[in-house]
This record gives sequence, structure tokens and C-alpha cells, in this order.
Amino acid sequence: MGPDELRELLERVARGDTDVTAASERLARLPFADVGDAKVDHHRALRCGFPEVVFCEGKTPDQVRDIAREILAESSVLLGTRASSSHFQSVAQIAQEARFFERARIILVDRRDPPVEPAGHVVIVSAGTSDQPVAEEAAVSAEAMGNRVTRVFDAGVAGVHRLLSQQDVLAEARVVIAIAGMEGALPSVVAGLVAVPVIAVPTSVGYGANLAGFAPLLTMLNSCATGIGVVNIDNGFGAAALADRINRPRGRDDHP
Amino acid sequence: MGPDELRELLERVARGDTDVTAASERLARLPFADVGDAKVDHHRALRCGFPEVVFCEGKTPDQVRDIAREILAESSVLLGTRASSSHFQSVAQIAQEARFFERARIILVDRRDPPVEPAGHVVIVSAGTSDQPVAEEAAVSAEAMGNRVTRVFDAGVAGVHRLLSQQDVLAEARVVIAIAGMEGALPSVVAGLVAVPVIAVPTSVGYGANLAGFAPLLTMLNSCATGIGVVNIDNGFGAAALADRINRPRGRDDHP
Amino acid sequence: MGPDELRELLERVARGDTDVTAASERLARLPFADVGDAKVDHHRALRCGFPEVVFCEGKTPDQVRDIAREILAESSVLLGTRASSSHFQSVAQIAQEARFFERARIILVDRRDPPVEPAGHVVIVSAGTSDQPVAEEAAVSAEAMGNRVTRVFDAGVAGVHRLLSQQDVLAEARVVIAIAGMEGALPSVVAGLVAVPVIAVPTSVGYGANLAGFAPLLTMLNSCATGIGVVNIDNGFGAAALADRINRPRGRDDHP
Amino acid sequence: MGPDELRELLERVARGDTDVTAASERLARLPFADVGDAKVDHHRALRCGFPEVVFCEGKTPDQVRDIAREILAESSVLLGTRASSSHFQSVAQIAQEARFFERARIILVDRRDPPVEPAGHVVIVSAGTSDQPVAEEAAVSAEAMGNRVTRVFDAGVAGVHRLLSQQDVLAEARVVIAIAGMEGALPSVVAGLVAVPVIAVPTSVGYGANLAGFAPLLTMLNSCATGIGVVNIDNGFGAAALADRINRPRGRDDHP
Amino acid sequence: MGPDELRELLERVARGDTDVTAASERLARLPFADVGDAKVDHHRALRCGFPEVVFCEGKTPDQVRDIAREILAESSVLLGTRASSSHFQSVAQIAQEARFFERARIILVDRRDPPVEPAGHVVIVSAGTSDQPVAEEAAVSAEAMGNRVTRVFDAGVAGVHRLLSQQDVLAEARVVIAIAGMEGALPSVVAGLVAVPVIAVPTSVGYGANLAGFAPLLTMLNSCATGIGVVNIDNGFGAAALADRINRPRGRDDHP
Amino acid sequence: MGPDELRELLERVARGDTDVTAASERLARLPFADVGDAKVDHHRALRCGFPEVVFCEGKTPDQVRDIAREILAESSVLLGTRASSSHFQSVAQIAQEARFFERARIILVDRRDPPVEPAGHVVIVSAGTSDQPVAEEAAVSAEAMGNRVTRVFDAGVAGVHRLLSQQDVLAEARVVIAIAGMEGALPSVVAGLVAVPVIAVPTSVGYGANLAGFAPLLTMLNSCATGIGVVNIDNGFGAAALADRINRPRGRDDHP
Amino acid sequence: MGPDELRELLERVARGDTDVTAASERLARLPFADVGDAKVDHHRALRCGFPEVVFCEGKTPDQVRDIAREILAESSVLLGTRASSSHFQSVAQIAQEARFFERARIILVDRRDPPVEPAGHVVIVSAGTSDQPVAEEAAVSAEAMGNRVTRVFDAGVAGVHRLLSQQDVLAEARVVIAIAGMEGALPSVVAGLVAVPVIAVPTSVGYGANLAGFAPLLTMLNSCATGIGVVNIDNGFGAAALADRINRPRGRDDHP
Amino acid sequence: MGPDELRELLERVARGDTDVTAASERLARLPFADVGDAKVDHHRALRCGFPEVVFCEGKTPDQVRDIAREILAESSVLLGTRASSSHFQSVAQIAQEARFFERARIILVDRRDPPVEPAGHVVIVSAGTSDQPVAEEAAVSAEAMGNRVTRVFDAGVAGVHRLLSQQDVLAEARVVIAIAGMEGALPSVVAGLVAVPVIAVPTSVGYGANLAGFAPLLTMLNSCATGIGVVNIDNGFGAAALADRINRPRGRDDHP
Repeated sequence: MGPDELRELLERVARGDTDVTAASERLARLPFADVGDAKVDHHRALRCGFPEVVFCEGKTPDQVRDIAREILAESSVLLGTRASSSHFQSVAQIAQEARFFERARIILVDRRDPPVEPAGHVVIVSAGTSDQPVAEEAAVSAEAMGNRVTRVFDAGVAGVHRLLSQQDVLAEARVVIAIAGMEGALPSVVAGLVAVPVIAVPTSVGYGANLAGFAPLLTMLNSCATGIGVVNIDNGFGAAALADRINRPRGRDDHP
Repeated sequence: MGPDELRELLERVARGDTDVTAASERLARLPFADVGDAKVDHHRALRCGFPEVVFCEGKTPDQVRDIAREILAESSVLLGTRASSSHFQSVAQIAQEARFFERARIILVDRRDPPVEPAGHVVIVSAGTSDQPVAEEAAVSAEAMGNRVTRVFDAGVAGVHRLLSQQDVLAEARVVIAIAGMEGALPSVVAGLVAVPVIAVPTSVGYGANLAGFAPLLTMLNSCATGIGVVNIDNGFGAAALADRINRPRGRDDHP
Repeated sequence: MGPDELRELLERVARGDTDVTAASERLARLPFADVGDAKVDHHRALRCGFPEVVFCEGKTPDQVRDIAREILAESSVLLGTRASSSHFQSVAQIAQEARFFERARIILVDRRDPPVEPAGHVVIVSAGTSDQPVAEEAAVSAEAMGNRVTRVFDAGVAGVHRLLSQQDVLAEARVVIAIAGMEGALPSVVAGLVAVPVIAVPTSVGYGANLAGFAPLLTMLNSCATGIGVVNIDNGFGAAALADRINRPRGRDDHP
Repeated sequence: MGPDELRELLERVARGDTDVTAASERLARLPFADVGDAKVDHHRALRCGFPEVVFCEGKTPDQVRDIAREILAESSVLLGTRASSSHFQSVAQIAQEARFFERARIILVDRRDPPVEPAGHVVIVSAGTSDQPVAEEAAVSAEAMGNRVTRVFDAGVAGVHRLLSQQDVLAEARVVIAIAGMEGALPSVVAGLVAVPVIAVPTSVGYGANLAGFAPLLTMLNSCATGIGVVNIDNGFGAAALADRINRPRGRDDHP
Repeated sequence: MGPDELRELLERVARGDTDVTAASERLARLPFADVGDAKVDHHRALRCGFPEVVFCEGKTPDQVRDIAREILAESSVLLGTRASSSHFQSVAQIAQEARFFERARIILVDRRDPPVEPAGHVVIVSAGTSDQPVAEEAAVSAEAMGNRVTRVFDAGVAGVHRLLSQQDVLAEARVVIAIAGMEGALPSVVAGLVAVPVIAVPTSVGYGANLAGFAPLLTMLNSCATGIGVVNIDNGFGAAALADRINRPRGRDDHP
Repeated sequence: MGPDELRELLERVARGDTDVTAASERLARLPFADVGDAKVDHHRALRCGFPEVVFCEGKTPDQVRDIAREILAESSVLLGTRASSSHFQSVAQIAQEARFFERARIILVDRRDPPVEPAGHVVIVSAGTSDQPVAEEAAVSAEAMGNRVTRVFDAGVAGVHRLLSQQDVLAEARVVIAIAGMEGALPSVVAGLVAVPVIAVPTSVGYGANLAGFAPLLTMLNSCATGIGVVNIDNGFGAAALADRINRPRGRDDHP
Repeated sequence: MGPDELRELLERVARGDTDVTAASERLARLPFADVGDAKVDHHRALRCGFPEVVFCEGKTPDQVRDIAREILAESSVLLGTRASSSHFQSVAQIAQEARFFERARIILVDRRDPPVEPAGHVVIVSAGTSDQPVAEEAAVSAEAMGNRVTRVFDAGVAGVHRLLSQQDVLAEARVVIAIAGMEGALPSVVAGLVAVPVIAVPTSVGYGANLAGFAPLLTMLNSCATGIGVVNIDNGFGAAALADRINRPRGRDDHP
Repeated sequence: MGPDELRELLERVARGDTDVTAASERLARLPFADVGDAKVDHHRALRCGFPEVVFCEGKTPDQVRDIAREILAESSVLLGTRASSSHFQSVAQIAQEARFFERARIILVDRRDPPVEPAGHVVIVSAGTSDQPVAEEAAVSAEAMGNRVTRVFDAGVAGVHRLLSQQDVLAEARVVIAIAGMEGALPSVVAGLVAVPVIAVPTSVGYGANLAGFAPLLTMLNSCATGIGVVNIDNGFGAAALADRINRPRGRDDHP
């Protein structure tokens, strides 16, 4: 039942066309999500400031294209993560301005006009060259959501001086995303250097006892430093989404 | 080398009492933590807005008392977590105004004058009665750090209506802490209802395949909802510290 | 908003005392669980045929007594699982007819009048003597919910003849609960002998590579036999609750 | 020894052609499965209402075809799961009416005449698009076994309103199969909404800490909701088989 | 149905007192374990040469005493493992000749007359002093079952010379039981020195990455040496039972 | 130092050409394996009755061929396990009589003359069709080592009658190898039916919670039946080697 | 701020061009790593005696070539590990004297003149043929770093005599690297034979319960022998780097 | 056979009292450990510079006292680890000069005269106060073995400045032992600061996802820094023993 139907029902009650008992029964069992169901994506955009994001991995190019078309019908921005170039080519057929961030594996269609004004400031620190795909996924996602992003790559703890030399950059962040594979110690050191929230992203970079990212995941959860929130292994997008919520909370009252 | 010593050295250089080469050498090797080392707690308080916190578990009452005395010599507030009543009695000997939050297992000495003005708003949602010790640890810690806290307890997903009935409360939060044992599904549902950051705390409440909290931990890391940062199992204090960073970031420029 | 309030609102609309827009807004945001929230236990009893069950482990005797009093205020039956004798004594203070099933660790207060008529038929098969506490938890729970229960204990697969000799008993079941620790092979063999649903309960009975019940849990999940649903380790009550749902489904239409 | 042979032996004893001692010895050591061994498939069909099902994965197309031919010699229905298109083509050589359900990876040959009358009602709820292969395996299997199936796909808990809008559909189920990857919270929420048995199927959809389906598996086993039975990861067929047993138990007395 | 009843039935058929159809039906459904069920212990003793063994852990002294009485009613030997001294005292009440092997935690009542003649030869090698309880459980069990046992204790691989000095003893074994905690390398080295079967017993002796015995268990399963069969962690009795089967197989034909 | 060199040294001492102190020092440090080192394969064959076996997986065809040539130079039989057809073709170049057991993935060159006389009796029971490669590896290996082998395939516990119908075959075994994937319950049931040693082989057949064979491995280690020794996952050869040691122990005294 | 800038600042203070307060502030916040940052590789070479090493796995040939060019601009030696032949070909384009150690998967460019003088003595013992890639990675790395290396391959504990025959070689080591897959018992035995440090390297050679190297890793961590330090699974280079540090420690005072 | 017996045998050969064949046979089968067996402790002291160490945990005070007496009969120093005060009191009965290091849980009897001259230099860095028992175990053990020890406690990475302020101390170490619980990142940072070997000791300090020390263990094994060798969780003694081997290697030639 959408708002119009609801209004109509109440008007029928007001006119006496529907009696109170019948209306009462219908409303008592009102499956309230009915309203939102037909407009689920639009509603999400209102609530969270960003429409549904497409996780492309495991979907065919055709499926991704169809979902993209559906989202773009209601929204001026489309973000697809874990995308391959064939996913991109399929989306490009229906949205010529689509861009493909290859390292980040992200498809972006951005028709916002005027362009979104970057706000907040996310510093993304990553430990090694091999962590860059995850770091770029976080960076591109955060930028697409309207955040200002500074990248500090290749600052692992084995050469802690490299990280310390970036303290001024870190000091300007509203939120830091710290990304590391191997032993994953970076967020612990970073959180000891800054006073803002640190989002820790373990990556599956490593071998042997790395356990495909479980070793850095455990490291981050057990950090002796405070102020760290951890996301899933390799989940650069998830870190960006959390950073975005920290940077630009949008309460119900903020809805247009 | 503290600031005064540094100033004195420079003044000697300015007066010509120390030549440039000698000063240069000394400064080049300046172990900069020397400054902070003697004042480590004070420095942390400046940087993060809150002094070092004592994790009491595994320490004797005497050890906790000694550390507390040391912290209170420089700070007007002391927070001790995972404390027993004997830890509390030991601290009370040196700080009569010490309070013990039994369910939260927290010792608090608060000599701030004027009292800290609550700012920000943290809503703490917990799934079951047995999660309350962790929830209270989060709540008391967040309040001690100067946050306004609203408790929504016993709102597990098996009766999702209970949670939905609290949507207005959730809508007012700047950050939500969602605490759950058993299968730990609460943060996923909460993050779908709000637009602010959700800090997920798995608890060790459960048995069998709960794996002492690993089951809800995995649930939270794998959430299909976005905007969730996870902390260690039973780490109510850690969630509060992250919420505090989100609520009241204190950059270097904010230092008095 | 309860049914009466809803009716009143609609009547005000019908009378013209409340205009359509105001009523529409209020109803659109109706947090429908408000209705049930104040009556959560009663509602659950209506929906599932049995009121909320108290998991006593980790609660103090006083807490259990208070919750029990609350439930008994609305319901004629109270079931408390994982209870100790001090839990029982505390409940007995407010409900003299309380019974304690020591081996099953269950507190039962049954004021149903007339007594519930046993329906359905649950056969509970357990592998060894040490599995009996879990088996009894399942049996007493199922009986309290109104099922007829037949116990077939000590029928492990190492002496498969003992189990085969019970085929006639198994053949009469509407649902079988198969309980086993050690290697947990019992449900596989049972499910090959009957045509009804088999609920498999792994127990933490064993040592070493038993992994506190994970070995039989994995066994049951990997069964080459079909028709098996698995519950958590040692979760006798959970098996009974599932058996009860199988035996006596109560759709919304069945509510009084 | 089949029934006829048994009868013949007894008739020889009755006629005096075989003496009691010899017959006694033969019968005492009677390996009773001898009877069933030559007719194992037929016997299973009698007992469970459905013949042996072929798990195609890891078998060659030729092997699957040979087993299919053997089953179809005695049975009017053949179900092959985890099948590839080459498995299908091989079976189609010997059974022209074979159908291939590509998404469900199922081969079905159905020669039942008259066609099986759908009975019972299974509602299959799945959390995300990627869970559909498992959901379809469950749906097609359940239908082939003679159940009426309603599909409710893409109803994950991160947008709990979508699920709540389906409450009327859920309310009509005799049994619900709830399928989810990622964090696997769906069955917990569903079991809180219905009064019928819920069969939970974890899927291997996800990455990182998903542990190839172990995260949702643990979630489902630890559910705070009651009435849930769990099957192996990705085991859509197993869920259907359990649902079928719940829907249409066939005791020994039901055998023709 | 026992042998006598079977004979009687057949005689009735032979006499014409029972007709063929009735006898056929009864025999077709003959639950053959009925015979053995009433005599399960005696039958096991016949089949395996040793009656049922009581695993005392988790049983009350009274339960152990009752089971012991039952076994001793049919058997001249009783073995109870994982026994405490209170288990022993309880058994001693009904069997004065009961002996308690404290280190092995075994209760033994041996009324065999004449005493069992030791046969076969089991050499039990253990790595460290702390492994002795498990080693003694194996040794006393094997002796009770009628094997000749030689103990070679404290022969860990870190001082491989100690083991090599025992090569002559090892060379006389019909079967070797090799017991080790910590890293559990002993069976690998032993199996390279002898040509007889090696039964490997991991123990839970160790700490940290020992994982309560899982580390040596994995070591033993992965041994690069051949001829090793592994039993559960700390399962000294299980090793003895396997050694006994190797030493003295008793086929059906060997039954008295 | 070989036997000849040793003899020569002693003769020099006897002749007075070497004084006692020098000889004493040399012998005290005698690395005794020097003798065997040059004849390691031959010595193993003497000790264990079978020469070194080649594990082909992970070796190139050339490497396998070279090792095969080396072994065949001293031995009349060569066994290569986990072999591909290209391994076989490479070996066939240097040994025309080489045979390839494709399903068992075994290369066998048998030049023993007269052929080895089968001794002992190994019954190999496997649970499902998919376990056959492991079962064949065990069977072919055991036969090559000189054991008589009986295969009982496809006798899983879900249809326990199929296994019971084979009791007469099992009763003739000197040792049983029981092979199962999925939940791995077969050895437990088998060990309850026979009095001889049971070697349990878990296979990696299964999916999801099977954990690539760990589920059946744990099942077998935790068996409530006695007399079971477990080998590594999929280790058919290892089971055969242990069966061979049980069947035909070769003490030092048996050496030619 | 580099040394020159520092000097300049101090000179400005000495001349009165910069006042003490301004200089004090700037120096107080001096990010000291700034100095080293521009020379990070060179600094590492000074500190550790060897420049940064390139982990090639997961990098493209172009990326490896670019990093190699950068390192060779400042250093006379380049070591690339986990390299493929395409990595090598890419590096060979810019450094003709590059060598490729195929089995070790190492690229080495060595322009040191005069060549490095081998010092220290590392004995590398490995258990099986399949461990050789890891052993060669260790050997080539250690040699490149300037150590003398002796290889003792194929000395597994199942034939402990082979190892014992090498005691004289082991006795000459300054440090031993012991490499083993399967059950990983080699380091335990080696550490009992020598008095020097033993570096244990588990390899992922094995199958089933080997857990991709976790079984030998656990073995090595739990060793009952003392004097063992463990590195990550398959980490031959890491073992070499540790051996090099043991062999040739370079304190700050040793820097040229 | 001890050295004297060996000499005597050779002298008999020299005198012609024993012929060459007989001597040859006896020596060929000489189980060389016979020599050491009777003097195992003395031999170990010669080889490794330190006699056998007693791991007291799990041993009774009487057992520890007896082993201590035996060791002190041949050695002038006794080290007992994981000791309780009752272990100490029992040892003090037979060795009045025994000392008890309570925090380190170590019993030490040191009768070396002249006292051992400290050599080498071990710096022990620990992350937190709770790690001190393990750190002290390492420190006291290393000192007892004759090493000079410097303690740098409470230098966790969350306040990396504290560690950096100790760089001069670290720079003087010949070997560093880095001890940490929680996330265990300390060794990674330390190894980036020094050029000497770093021995990493994970501790079981922490909770939840710490997994009783497995989290820091994995961190240390996966370190992106080079030059780290890891020992078992909480194994302070093991770290000391490895440091001692690094500091003071004792080849066979060093034996008195």
C-alpha cells in the first residue's frame, strides 16, 4: 500500500464509504514495507545519500547491465564493485559516460549535476604495493560518495619511519582507513598516532600462515590501540561506506 | 628533552654558547619520544581527550591501585575496565570518590570540574539480557568520555518487531553501538535502518557452535549491510572509544 | 498503538475530528511492533502456541525468578532450561507447583487446565548414557509443549543391532530426534531407516578431536542420508521446539 | 533371499522337503538386506516415496547415464543434482523427455502418470541474487518430490522491510526454507515471524571471513530464534528432502 | 527371537501348526538384533574376546558401580577407564578383588581362572614423563586384554639417541604403540625403525600452539613414514584395543 | 664406513698397524648410518619387505622416471602413487612391463619371479562411488605388496542393510580398510561388526562443512567403536601399507 | 627536513635571522623520518647490509622491472623472490647480468666488486625432494647475502639414519636451516643433534590433514627440542634473512 | 657401551683375545646411544653448555625434587620453569641455595664456581605489563645460561614513540627478544629498527579473537619485516634458549 492508496483509504473512511471496522482490519495487518518495496532503491538513496551498489562478482555482464539500467532509471549515480572489464563493457552499452577504474575494479556512472562537492576528508593508508587494489576500491568508492580522499600508500610498519613521516597528513584526516595484509599491524600503529576513527581493512595479501587474510583480520581485532573498527577481508568498499557514514551522517531529518 | 630544554638549547645557539654543529647533532638524533616518555599519560590526554585506561583483568589489586595513583597524579579522571570489587576497594583507598559500576565491571574516578558536558549521542542496542555486561561496559565508558548515551536493551532479531518499534530512538543517534551474542545478526538489521555508523560488538554469550563469540564475530564481518565497523569479542570499552572518536574527533589543532 | 487506539483514530477520521492528512502521516510511520511490544509474550504464545522460554544459564536465581513471575502473569505455563537447583528454589518461591527435572536441568510450571492433550509423536534416540542430559532436555521440553515422547536411549552405531532392534518404535514416529556425541553417526543411520524428519543434535560428549561437539556437528551436517535438520551442540530444547513445529504447525489462522 | 524364495523355503519346510535344522541355520544367518539388495532402489522408493537421487558432481556423463538408466528401469522419476549440461546431454540420450534446469543444475525425468499432485506448501526465501542457484535447487527438487513451492527471492535482512512485506506469503507455508550466504541472518528473522518449521541453508556466497559458507552456517546454528533445522552449506536439495519429509511423512503403513 | 524360538517356529511350520504365510511375514520382518539385544554384553565378549569397557569419566560412582555389577554378572573381567578413586571405591564395594591403577586411571576386576595367558607382544614407547598417564592406560588395558607389554618411556626425538638405543627392544614387538604430546614426532621416527604396525597416540601434553593435542595429532596423520594408524588424543585405551585386535584377531569361527 | 672398511680397520688394529686410541676415536664417532646410506633402498626392502614407493604428485615425469630407474636397479618391483598418465608414459620408456591403474592413479612394475604369493586377506569397504579412486589406490597397493584383497564398494551407512548383507565377507578379513567421505561413519559401524583391526581412511569427497575431508577424519578419530586406526585424508596407499604390516610383520629375524 | 636544512635552520638561529620561538616550534614537530624517507633503500642497506628485496608474486613483470631499476640505481645487488621467468625476462632487459635460479624462483643481479666474501656457514637440511624449491630459495638467498651454504637434502626423519650420517656436516654449521613439509619433525631431531640455532621452515608439501603447511608449522612451534625459531610456511627467503642476521650482525657502529 | 668398554674391546682385538669377525659384528650393531644413555644429562651439558631443564608444570613437587636431585648430582646448575611455590619448597629441601623467581615462575640452583661470566647481550622488549611473566621467564633463563640481559618493558606499538625512544638500547643488542600478546605487532616494528636477529614470543594475553595467543602468533609468522624467528605461545624459556645459542654457539670442538 503506497501513500496514495493510504490517503485514499482514509478519505473513504472520512466520506463514510468504508466503515471503521474494515479500515481498521486492513491497517492492522498493513505490511508497512509495501510502501517502500516498489521504491526500495529510491528510498535507500534518500536514507543513506547513495543508491544501492552492485557487487558484480559472480554476476554475468548481462545481469549487471540490467541491474545498472534499473538503478540509473531512478538515480544519477551508479557504483559497481568487483567488476571485470566485460562487466564494464556491458554497462557502457547503456551508459556511455561509464568509467572503469581497472585497479579498483569499479564501474562508475556519475550524472550528478552539479557534480557532488567533496566534503569530509578520508586519509587512506596502505601497507604495501600489493594492497593497492583494495586501497583503490576504498578510495574510488569514497570519492564517488562525495568524500575528499588522500592516499598514503606503501607505508608498512616494518619501516615505521615512512609512516611517521606522514604524521602531518594523518593529522588532517576526519577518518583514516588503514589497509594491510601480511601481519596487518598498520592500524594499531596508526591509531596510536591520530585521534580520529580508524577503519581497519585486512587484505588477503600474504601466504602460508596468513590464512587468506585471517591473520591480519585477527591482528586488527586484537589491537592494543583504541578507536579501530574492522571490516571484512579485502572489503575496501565497506570501509569507504563506513567512512562516508562517519563523515556525513544523514539523519531522517536531512531528507529532502 | 622537554620543550623547556629544547628552548634552552636554541637560546644557547642564539647566544652563541652552543655552536651549530653540536646542536645539529643533538637534534638530529633527538629521540623525540623522550619528551613524551616522562609525560606519556598527559600527552595522550592532550591528543585523545582522555587519559590512559586501565585494563584490570590479570592485574593484582595492588598493581591497579599503583597505576591509578600514577594516572590521577596528572589527570582528573580515571577509568578502569574489567575490574573486580577487590580492584575497586584497592582504588577506593587512594580515591574516596571512586565509583564501581558492578555490571559494567568499571571503576570510575571523575574529578573533572566543571563536570564534562555530554556531547554527541550514542545509542547502544543489545540483543539479549545476557549481553548487558558488555552493553553496560560500553555505556559507562562512553558516558565517562563525555558522550550522551541511550540504552535500547533486549532487542534481538528473533522478535524483529521489538527493534522496529525503536526506530525513532535509533534515528536520533550520531552513532549506534549494536551488541549481540548467539548468532549476532542485530548489527545487520540495525545498519539497514539507520544512516549513521554502526559499531558492532560480538559477545561470547552462547554455547556450542557459538565458539566463544566467533560465530557472531563472523556474522558481523560478513554483514550484507554497509556502514558497520567491528570490534573484538566482548569489547564494550573499545566500541565506546571508537564511538567517542566518531562523536568528538580531536585533531592536533584542538589541543589546548 | 494498540487495536483500540487504532480504532479510535479511524473513528475520529470518520467523524471528521481528525483530518486525512494527519491520520495518514501517523499511520504511515506506524511502528507496528508498538502493539505487540507491551504484550510481547502473549503475542508469541498466540503465534507459536508456547510462551517465551527462559534460558537460565548465566542468569542469577533472582533474575530468573523475576522473569518467571512476569511470564506467569500472562501465561499458564513456564519452561526454564539450563537451570540449576538454586534457580529452581528461587522460582519455587513464587510458584509452589514448580517441578525440577534435574537431569534435564529444566524448571516447569504447568497450570494449564485442562492439561494439554499430548499430540504428535516424537521418538528421541540417543547414542550413549552420557548424552542423556541433552536427551532429557529434549524429552521434557517436547512433552511440556504437548507432544507424546518415546525415549530410545543408548543405541549407538558401534552396536548397530541395538538400533535395528528398535525399528518398530522408530516406524511409529512423526518426527525423530537423534542425539549423539563422540563421532555423531547416529542420525545418518536413523535417517536411512525412517521416512519422517530427523532432527540431529550433536553433544559435547567426547574428548580430544571431538572438539567439544564440533566433530559430531560436522558429521551430522555432512550426512549422506537425507531428511536431517541439525541444531546447535547440546541444544536439546531447540530440537524439541523444532519437533513441536513439525508436529503441530500453528498458522496465523489457528490463533484463537 | 527375496520374498518368493523365503516363501518357497517355508513351503519346503511345510512339505518336509527341507528339515527344520537346515532351514533354521539358513534363516538364522539370513543377511536380511539380501532381499533388498537386488532391489535397493525400489525399496527406497517404497519407504521414502522417492527413488535414489543422483549426485552428478564428480561423476562422468557416462556414469550418470548408466545410473540413470538403472534407476529408470524401476522408477518413473529420476532426479539428478549438481549436473552440468554434458551430464544432461548424456541422460537425454536414453530419456528424451529429460529436462534440464540450468540455474538449479538439475536433471529431471518425470514419467509419472498421472502427474504427481502437488501437496503441502513450501515457501523458499532467499537473501540475495547470488543465492538463487541454491534456492532453485531446493525449489525444483521440492516440486519434483510433489510439493507446492512459492519462491520469495532477494529478501535479505539488511532491508528487513522487504521481508516483512512478505509476511502474508510466509503465513501460508507449511514449512519455510530460508537460504542465505554472507552473514546468514535470514533464518533467524524468518523463524521469529512464522510458526512453522524453518529449514536453514547457508550458502558459500561471500568472501573473506565468510569462510566459504561457514560464517552463515554458524549463524544459523546459533540462532536465538527457535524452530530452525540447519543443513549443509549450499545443500538446496537436502533442504527440499527434509521439507518433503515434513510435508508428507510416509510411515511403513503407507506402503502400497 | 532367539535360536530356540526360531527352531520352534520352523517346527510349527513343519508340523503344519503355523501356515506358510504367517511364518513368512514374521520372518520377513525379523529384527535380527532381537537375539543379541538381551545378551548384548555376552555377545560382544564372544565376538571380540573382551566384554564392554566402562568409560567412567562423566559418570557418577553409583552409575559406574551399577554398570560394573551388570557386566560382572556375565563376565569374569571388568575394565573401567578414566576412573577416579571414588569410582574405584564404589566398585570395590561389589568386587573386593578390584584393583585401581592410579596413574592409568583404570579399575580392573579380573576373575579369569585360569589367568589369561599373555600372548602377542606390544611395545609401548612414550616421549616424555608427562605422557605416562596415557602410556599407562594403554599398557594396563593391553595387559588386561591378554597381551604381553614392554614399556619404553621417556624416549623423545629431541634426544634421538635414547630411542635408537632401544632398537633391540623395538625389534621384538608384534605391534608398537608410540605416544607423544608436544610436536608428536615420535611415531614417525619409530615407524622408520620397525617393520610392524605402529599405533600413534597424540597426547594433550603441551601448551600454546599445541592446541590441546591437535598439533601432535596432525603430525601423526601427516607422517612421512608408512605403517602408522592414529587414534584420538589421549586415547591410550583405544590404542590398546587396536593392538589387541592386531595381536589376536578373533574371527567368528574362533568363538567357543 | 661400510662393513669392509670396518673389517679393515679392525684388522689393522689386530695387526698393530693402527693403535687402539686412534681406532677408538674413529669408532666412537662412527656415523653408523654410513653403512646403510649407500644402500638405503635395499636396506628398506630387507627391513619392510617392500622397496621405497614413489609419490608422483608434484614431481615431473622426468624426475619420476629417474627415481624409478634407480629403484629398479636394485629391486624387482616399483610402485608409484598419485601418478598421471604422463608419469606413466615416462616410466614405460624404461620399463616396458609397467602397468597403469588409472582409477587408482598407480604405476606398477612387477618383475618378481616367481610372482608374489598373495597372503593375508584385506577387505576394503567403501561408502560411495566417489570414494573409489581412494579405495582402488588402497586395493592395488595392498595387492602389489602381496596381500589378497576383497572389494566391497558402495556400502554407505545411510542404507545400513547393504553393509549388513556383507557380514560374511567381512568375517573372513584379517584386516578391514573402511573408506568414507561425507560424514565418514562407515568405520564406526564396521568396527562394531568385526573383531579384526579396522583401518579408517577419510576421503575429501563432499562439500561445504565437509572441510575437504576433515569432517570424516574427525568422525573416525572420535569413533565410539574400538579397534580403529586412522590414516590421513585420501591416503589409500597408507592404509594399504599399514594393512600389509598387520598381515605380514617382518621382524629383523625374518631377513634373508 | 634533511641534515642540510636542519643545519641551515640552526645557522639562522645563530645569526638571529630566526627567533628561538619559531625554531622551537618547528623542531618540536620535526617528523624525524623525513630525513630517511628520501633515502629509504640506501638507509636500509646501511643498516642491514642488504638492500630491499622484491617479492615478485602478484606483481606484473613491468612493475618488477621498474622497482628493480630503482633499487639498482642505488645498490649493486638486487634480489627478487617468488619470480617467474617472465619476471626474469623483464628484469634482464635492464640488467644483462641478471641470473635466474629457476627452482629457487629467484632473480639475482650482483654487481658487487670485488665479489662478496662468503662468511659464516649455513647448513640447510631438507626432508624431501618436494621441499627443494623452498630449500633452494633459502640457499640462493643466503649465498646472495654473503653466507657460505652447505646443502643436505632429502634427510627426512622416517629414515633417521640418513640424517645421523650427516652429523659431521651439521657440526660445522654456525646456524642450521631445517626445512620440512608433511609432519615437519626434522627440526626437532636436528636441534637435538647440534648446539647452534636452528631455523625451522614448514613447507606446504603434503595433503589432507597437512592443512597446506599448518601441520608442520604446529609441529615446529611445539618442538620438545630447544633452540628453534620458526618462520612462515614456505618462507625460504625469511629463513635465509634470519640466518644472515645471526651470522653477520651489523650494529649501528658497523656502518661505513 | 661406554668409551672404556670400547677401548677395552679394541685392546682385546689388538692383543688377539677377540678376533676381528666378532668385534666387527659387535661394532656394526653398536647402538651408539648406549654410550650417552647412562650419562645423558652430562652429555647434553657438554654439547649445549647447559644441562637439561625441568618443565615443572604437570609434575608433582616430589617428582620435581627427584629430577632436581638427579641433575644436581652431575651438574652445578639447575633450572626449573613453570614452577609453583610448592615446587620450589620441595627443591629447597635438597638444595638450600635454591632461589625462586616468582614472577618468572623459575627455580634456580646455581653452584657454578667461579660464577658464570655474562657474555653476549640480549635485549628483551615486551609490549605490556601483562606480558611480564613471560618476559621474566625469558630474562631469568637467559641470565642463568650466562647472557647479559637488558629489559625494555611496556613498549607496545600503540604508542610507538615509547619504542622509538629506546632505539639506542636496541642498537646495542646482539639479539632481541620481542614479546607481545594482543595483536602481537611489536616484533615487526622492532625488526625494522635493528639489524640483529629478533626472536618473537607471542603471549596468551588478550581475549576474544586473541584465540589464547594464536592471533599474535600468526601476526609474528606473517611479519613483513625480515629477520624474525618465532617460538611457541608464552614460551619465554624457549626464546632464551634460542638467544643463548645465537650468542654463544658451542660446536663439538668447544667441548672441554
